[in-house]
Amino acid sequence: MKMWDGRFAKPSDSLMEQFHNSISFDQTLIDEDIACSTAWAGALERIGIFTRKEAATVTAALAAIGKDYRKGKITFSPHDEDIHMAIERMLVERVGEAGARLHTGRSRNDQTATDLRLFIKKRLLDLHNEVIELQQALVYRAETDLDVIMPGFTHLQQAQPILLSHYWLSFFFLLDRDKKRIGNASVAADTLPLGSGAIAGSGFDVDRAGLAETLGFTDISDNSIDAVASRDYVLDALAACASLGVSMSRYAEDLIIFSSREFGFIEIDDAWSTGSSMMPQKKNPDSLELIRGKCGRFIGNYTRMAATLKGVGLAYYKDLQEDKEPLFDSVSQTEIVLRVFTRVIATLSVRRKRIADDLHPFLFATDLADYLVRKGAPFRKAHRTVGRIIGHCLERNIALTSISVDELRGFSDLFCDDAMKLFSWEGAIAARSICGGTGRGSVKAQISKAKKLLRKG
Amino acid sequence: MKMWDGRFAKPSDSLMEQFHNSISFDQTLIDEDIACSTAWAGALERIGIFTRKEAATVTAALAAIGKDYRKGKITFSPHDEDIHMAIERMLVERVGEAGARLHTGRSRNDQTATDLRLFIKKRLLDLHNEVIELQQALVYRAETDLDVIMPGFTHLQQAQPILLSHYWLSFFFLLDRDKKRIGNASVAADTLPLGSGAIAGSGFDVDRAGLAETLGFTDISDNSIDAVASRDYVLDALAACASLGVSMSRYAEDLIIFSSREFGFIEIDDAWSTGSSMMPQKKNPDSLELIRGKCGRFIGNYTRMAATLKGVGLAYYKDLQEDKEPLFDSVSQTEIVLRVFTRVIATLSVRRKRIADDLHPFLFATDLADYLVRKGAPFRKAHRTVGRIIGHCLERNIALTSISVDELRGFSDLFCDDAMKLFSWEGAIAARSICGGTGRGSVKAQISKAKKLLRKG
Amino acid sequence: MKMWDGRFAKPSDSLMEQFHNSISFDQTLIDEDIACSTAWAGALERIGIFTRKEAATVTAALAAIGKDYRKGKITFSPHDEDIHMAIERMLVERVGEAGARLHTGRSRNDQTATDLRLFIKKRLLDLHNEVIELQQALVYRAETDLDVIMPGFTHLQQAQPILLSHYWLSFFFLLDRDKKRIGNASVAADTLPLGSGAIAGSGFDVDRAGLAETLGFTDISDNSIDAVASRDYVLDALAACASLGVSMSRYAEDLIIFSSREFGFIEIDDAWSTGSSMMPQKKNPDSLELIRGKCGRFIGNYTRMAATLKGVGLAYYKDLQEDKEPLFDSVSQTEIVLRVFTRVIATLSVRRKRIADDLHPFLFATDLADYLVRKGAPFRKAHRTVGRIIGHCLERNIALTSISVDELRGFSDLFCDDAMKLFSWEGAIAARSICGGTGRGSVKAQISKAKKLLRKG
Amino acid sequence: MKMWDGRFAKPSDSLMEQFHNSISFDQTLIDEDIACSTAWAGALERIGIFTRKEAATVTAALAAIGKDYRKGKITFSPHDEDIHMAIERMLVERVGEAGARLHTGRSRNDQTATDLRLFIKKRLLDLHNEVIELQQALVYRAETDLDVIMPGFTHLQQAQPILLSHYWLSFFFLLDRDKKRIGNASVAADTLPLGSGAIAGSGFDVDRAGLAETLGFTDISDNSIDAVASRDYVLDALAACASLGVSMSRYAEDLIIFSSREFGFIEIDDAWSTGSSMMPQKKNPDSLELIRGKCGRFIGNYTRMAATLKGVGLAYYKDLQEDKEPLFDSVSQTEIVLRVFTRVIATLSVRRKRIADDLHPFLFATDLADYLVRKGAPFRKAHRTVGRIIGHCLERNIALTSISVDELRGFSDLFCDDAMKLFSWEGAIAARSICGGTGRGSVKAQISKAKKLLRKG
Repeated sequence: MKMWDGRFAKPSDSLMEQFHNSISFDQTLIDEDIACSTAWAGALERIGIFTRKEAATVTAALAAIGKDYRKGKITFSPHDEDIHMAIERMLVERVGEAGARLHTGRSRNDQTATDLRLFIKKRLLDLHNEVIELQQALVYRAETDLDVIMPGFTHLQQAQPILLSHYWLSFFFLLDRDKKRIGNASVAADTLPLGSGAIAGSGFDVDRAGLAETLGFTDISDNSIDAVASRDYVLDALAACASLGVSMSRYAEDLIIFSSREFGFIEIDDAWSTGSSMMPQKKNPDSLELIRGKCGRFIGNYTRMAATLKGVGLAYYKDLQEDKEPLFDSVSQTEIVLRVFTRVIATLSVRRKRIADDLHPFLFATDLADYLVRKGAPFRKAHRTVGRIIGHCLERNIALTSISVDELRGFSDLFCDDAMKLFSWEGAIAARSICGGTGRGSVKAQISKAKKLLRKG
Repeated sequence: MKMWDGRFAKPSDSLMEQFHNSISFDQTLIDEDIACSTAWAGALERIGIFTRKEAATVTAALAAIGKDYRKGKITFSPHDEDIHMAIERMLVERVGEAGARLHTGRSRNDQTATDLRLFIKKRLLDLHNEVIELQQALVYRAETDLDVIMPGFTHLQQAQPILLSHYWLSFFFLLDRDKKRIGNASVAADTLPLGSGAIAGSGFDVDRAGLAETLGFTDISDNSIDAVASRDYVLDALAACASLGVSMSRYAEDLIIFSSREFGFIEIDDAWSTGSSMMPQKKNPDSLELIRGKCGRFIGNYTRMAATLKGVGLAYYKDLQEDKEPLFDSVSQTEIVLRVFTRVIATLSVRRKRIADDLHPFLFATDLADYLVRKGAPFRKAHRTVGRIIGHCLERNIALTSISVDELRGFSDLFCDDAMKLFSWEGAIAARSICGGTGRGSVKAQISKAKKLLRKG
Repeated sequence: MKMWDGRFAKPSDSLMEQFHNSISFDQTLIDEDIACSTAWAGALERIGIFTRKEAATVTAALAAIGKDYRKGKITFSPHDEDIHMAIERMLVERVGEAGARLHTGRSRNDQTATDLRLFIKKRLLDLHNEVIELQQALVYRAETDLDVIMPGFTHLQQAQPILLSHYWLSFFFLLDRDKKRIGNASVAADTLPLGSGAIAGSGFDVDRAGLAETLGFTDISDNSIDAVASRDYVLDALAACASLGVSMSRYAEDLIIFSSREFGFIEIDDAWSTGSSMMPQKKNPDSLELIRGKCGRFIGNYTRMAATLKGVGLAYYKDLQEDKEPLFDSVSQTEIVLRVFTRVIATLSVRRKRIADDLHPFLFATDLADYLVRKGAPFRKAHRTVGRIIGHCLERNIALTSISVDELRGFSDLFCDDAMKLFSWEGAIAARSICGGTGRGSVKAQISKAKKLLRKG
Repeated sequence: MKMWDGRFAKPSDSLMEQFHNSISFDQTLIDEDIACSTAWAGALERIGIFTRKEAATVTAALAAIGKDYRKGKITFSPHDEDIHMAIERMLVERVGEAGARLHTGRSRNDQTATDLRLFIKKRLLDLHNEVIELQQALVYRAETDLDVIMPGFTHLQQAQPILLSHYWLSFFFLLDRDKKRIGNASVAADTLPLGSGAIAGSGFDVDRAGLAETLGFTDISDNSIDAVASRDYVLDALAACASLGVSMSRYAEDLIIFSSREFGFIEIDDAWSTGSSMMPQKKNPDSLELIRGKCGRFIGNYTRMAATLKGVGLAYYKDLQEDKEPLFDSVSQTEIVLRVFTRVIATLSVRRKRIADDLHPFLFATDLADYLVRKGAPFRKAHRTVGRIIGHCLERNIALTSISVDELRGFSDLFCDDAMKLFSWEGAIAARSICGGTGRGSVKAQISKAKKLLRKG
């Protein structure tokens, strides 16, 4: 017997139950469902559907079910369609008629939307906090590695010298925007749909504002059809995870390359590396590879949900049941990726000597061109002049820094003795003291700002 | 000769130029690039790279290039890599050395990021305004169709009676969140990257805050690596378009079904329909089908950009050039979809008689169950009782509304004479007067709120 | 202690284990891994690594592990990285040193690729068989419903009359191509990677052709790097599932619409429908909605895997571990969708009377135009003439079939008395006797061909 | 005046035309459309719709339109909906009534499906040929670089020595499967839909087998609904491009890393590199980055089409018009990516000395373990022993190859004097002479097989 089969002449096929039932995954929502039902019992009491005593009985029984679940005492039946029906069944088994009153004036349509929004709000807050942990690790690194000048890369070719701290901070500020994205997604979820019934609004005039307050929602939905039909807030949460995944995959890529023996800039701690089943010498940055690889699932989960939603009419179709698995997967996997990345970054070793040795004199090329500009050359011409000097060095296989002023003057008579002063790593860093640049002052200001942002949470 | 090939021994292959050059699509950014360069010229003047006169010459030449482009007087060369290099080339051709000074202290990396952000801000504002147009059409409909009671559907099965206005408003409120999403994406783009150079910050200490003010940015980027490497704001814009596309595709699906002869609820205006090349009688809601179908591209454009970005290390790789086409496509197509949908909705005819005829007595089932609840039955039991009544009607093929009170009492003795009053469409609507419900009062309140939101813009 | 940590100074962090270990999902491959190891033991015996007795011991122990697993007697440890290491651990625990010899000359890289290919071959065969079941249901319907003439739709507007059987057969032939796609994906997986070692080929010259024969592979891989690095065959399997999902979602959409009360063409059997928690009268085609909705996950799983693979260099990175979950999900969910769809189609009722009543006279419009063509009119002109006749009927609200020959002649003097014969449903069907058309002869020929294809399997 | 608006009271809105018309992109199909119409004219002649003379007139006019288009003499009107209607319009303008007869018995539904299939067949053949070019470049490299022993990588950590030729060949064999995928997609497109009309089959019994022969199709479609509704073959073509894109992006990633100064294994030819607008020293492997980046669009195009198709009912909806742009984009971009990659690979320089210098003694670790196995140790124990030797080397910072036999014996008394012979790069390569391995014999056999495959085409 189902909760809804009064009109049916025939029971469901067992394959249909297996196909249709969502209890295997939507039990994740048990806490939210109990919270939702508890609040609903209170609202029903206020309009006289429940006596005070009945409401108390139901509330206590719901709490007991939650407790039993956490203790592993509950096994769901294959006939339990979903967490909502399962809890109602257990409630009726435990408290009888009062339990059978609970679904008055509500539908699974508004109930499941409420549960989902509660879940999203809670889990996005978890992600927010994990992002902060990762940001803290980056600030720690930025402060610790402030002495390290490294080649900055574009196209994986040495471009200009930068402070390693500047690099870590670039990740910090990207994450700060990911945090905002999580916040926006959380706001999108922060509206109570309960009271919308199946589509038209509850037939019982419960106090929706009161329900919102009890359940911690800032707002109530304006339109019952929209409230049960929409899943745009699920897409927001999935997009926030996807963006975060993309951000992390990009830095993971860099660090995988940096931890190759050929680059040798960093070494991942043994605790976050693994070996090979066949090759005894291997130490692999598996943690970073998985961080990079898991980004695919975040993109896929977004695509999956968007494709499922697309073209599905109003108000509720069973297609919408497909909202939960990608959501649960994206938030839980994003969380563990964040936690792992935090620890990988906090524990990695920076190989200072190797980095210093790797700085190539060509990194001074822009400074040379800028020098010519300061002496009066138009930049485009200065660029070409320096390009020719580089070509000269390449052809003769000589270091840019071993060139004499006289040789330089062969390319442009704007070069004077002071040109030699350009060949200093600290000087090249100092030349980018512009706000946001890699100059030490700028980087220190970034650290201060980062700390201030973290204090805000 | 390229702008950058001083160091190269060999020119680019012509196939490489064809592959690599982006001028065919990035000329879309010409206005933004000119604005960006004009502001940059001003900034360079303030630090003495340009004389006042040179800056004025450059500024005027840039304006003239823009004007010539709008007049169709400019043809790009196949050797023009991108809009940035093309403009610099023309500038040098027109004003000589002053033009060759313009690229001082900047890189295409920060330049293109600035152009893209300007573009996004402008075009998202356009979308914001088009959403408002669509919302206005919906409010117009909600006011016009306030008399129409229609079957509300879940699973495309008649569920409960609703006001057609309530349906239109559900779309309004969904769009209001899409508008917020556009706003958030616009905020994400509203930070100036200019001054970040190639990766390390400009070697010339230009006034970035001043540049931001000139170009209309609220903020300046904190970290030069992040500024040139990040494209998270592009993903935000694409996700906003995808969400909007999903929203619209869902209502398009409904309206396609509603305009079938079998439903017959609405008729699309001739101006927004098309015929068949073979079948003379056909009138097809092509506009709605394209609205639904184009959603696929918005999802695809998001996926495409996310997949391209994923795992691409820092700071800049040419992969990032792939950011433009999906962005240009999504914003321009979203805009036209919005414009078409606005007009389709504003001009469609509602077939009142057919809708009224389609209301099925079973739509009263929930009211019957709610009635029993009010008489004291637990809801779950009331649901089952009414389910059996429905089964009874189905078996005998009789209308629910033709059942007598006596017959009803055969199912539950809670039924009294007043049960017959339930069989009123207006009554069923009135029973959902809860906030957000389909009751007339609630719907009118929604209209008021909608108008208030529109006044805010 | 790990299988590979001889060189490590520090153990893995427990969070790293949780993040990195794949035993929770890759135990799905236990049968394949045991088959693979059993074959490997045989190959090692042939080159003298194992004595005959050792090989027998290992083989028996592997079989026993498989048996214990099926009996639920095995619990994996949180330290078990994956199914491969878990089985090796248990093997060593059970048979000691012989077990420790098993990994000679192989790597998890070639081992896991072999397991995965075995899995894909087996599961695609399952899908192939389920497609055949669905096709059989469609042939059954095509034969059963051969008397039913229904409106054929384009744009959800009545287009031309068709046989319902013709509609069912359209699905049959689409599925036949999906079956080919599954077959192609199976061929793509049908190559043995074992013997490729970690990247360079095994250091022990085992008989790879013999291994292939033992494990049922048609071919052996040509290049060891390709063998361990490639996952293109996983994409093939995912694309086959996605195509099949798209195919099924399209017919599910139709059937959802056809089972609305407004269309009323079919009724889903109670066993494959569900009710509402709130509305007692509801009977929802949930099975079809889920079939439609689950297509999103098949698309998403493809996207996820493609995005994960993209840009991941050679030969093996841990990113590749992300291949399993989307694959397992797509094949198991595709299988259940196929099984459910088969039963839904086999058990649905066709509402013949309603369908007949729904046929609209405008469906004859093309026949009218074709008539004029046969009388000598150029088609484009005939089309316009009939269009005007339709407009005339719409304006006056009269049925096309109630028009007299005289009235028709007012539009074109090519109309003669025989025009009236056009207004026959059977005649309109008969007029499409072209090969592939909806004429009865053509449909019967399709049924014959369908049966022949099914006999081939 | 439209071709189809006889029944309409009102013309299309001009915005609707802009939204709906596909002429801007579907003119790509002009050759296919002319071929299709020419064949159709022949078929109509055979059933007496055209006189021989009319058919000749129409055929000549169609050819002339094609010629004029190629000469740039044709400008489409904004009222031209699509290439089909545009050609019919021009035809009527040029030859009058005969032109107006051409659309007899066909619909744009079967016409556009035919055009699309012709296009796919032609363009997939182009891609097939470009894949062969790339494969030839790889065979050239495999033969040229046969002397180069390089470190083989897993996890971007040195794993085992391999021949560079072996690496190039891994790409060859992957591409060979991509070629099969293209072939399968081509077979999927190789069925003639023409004669299916709008949905029900043409009302004129044209010779479909003859049409297939004329147009070069192997088969004719079995069912007219399937023929106009299906786009599964478009998904196949998009999946083939996506797989190929993924394949190429992975090798592009490797080569980008290999061309960094830190790896320094290869140098991209100047003709396929670009410089920086700001940094005069830069030489960037832009070609490879774009190859990698463009893969995102191939994945996105697949997703886009699949999402558009999903849940779109039968037989034809305007949503299907969205099939063309992703298809055109994927095939043309895949083609250029292939062409560029061929040339990049053919022209790059291998830096032999740097590669040789980079080989690290730890690459011998597996050989050491295999040695112990041959001396009787179980592999798992041998792995651990060598792991400890590696740990010893790391701790003392000594080279594995500088260890003495006595020291080795401290770890295992199985080590004898012959262990020292393991430390030979050629020896390590020779040890993988297994079929598919990196041994010279195996690699040469691969080259032979590759050449044989190329001869087959």
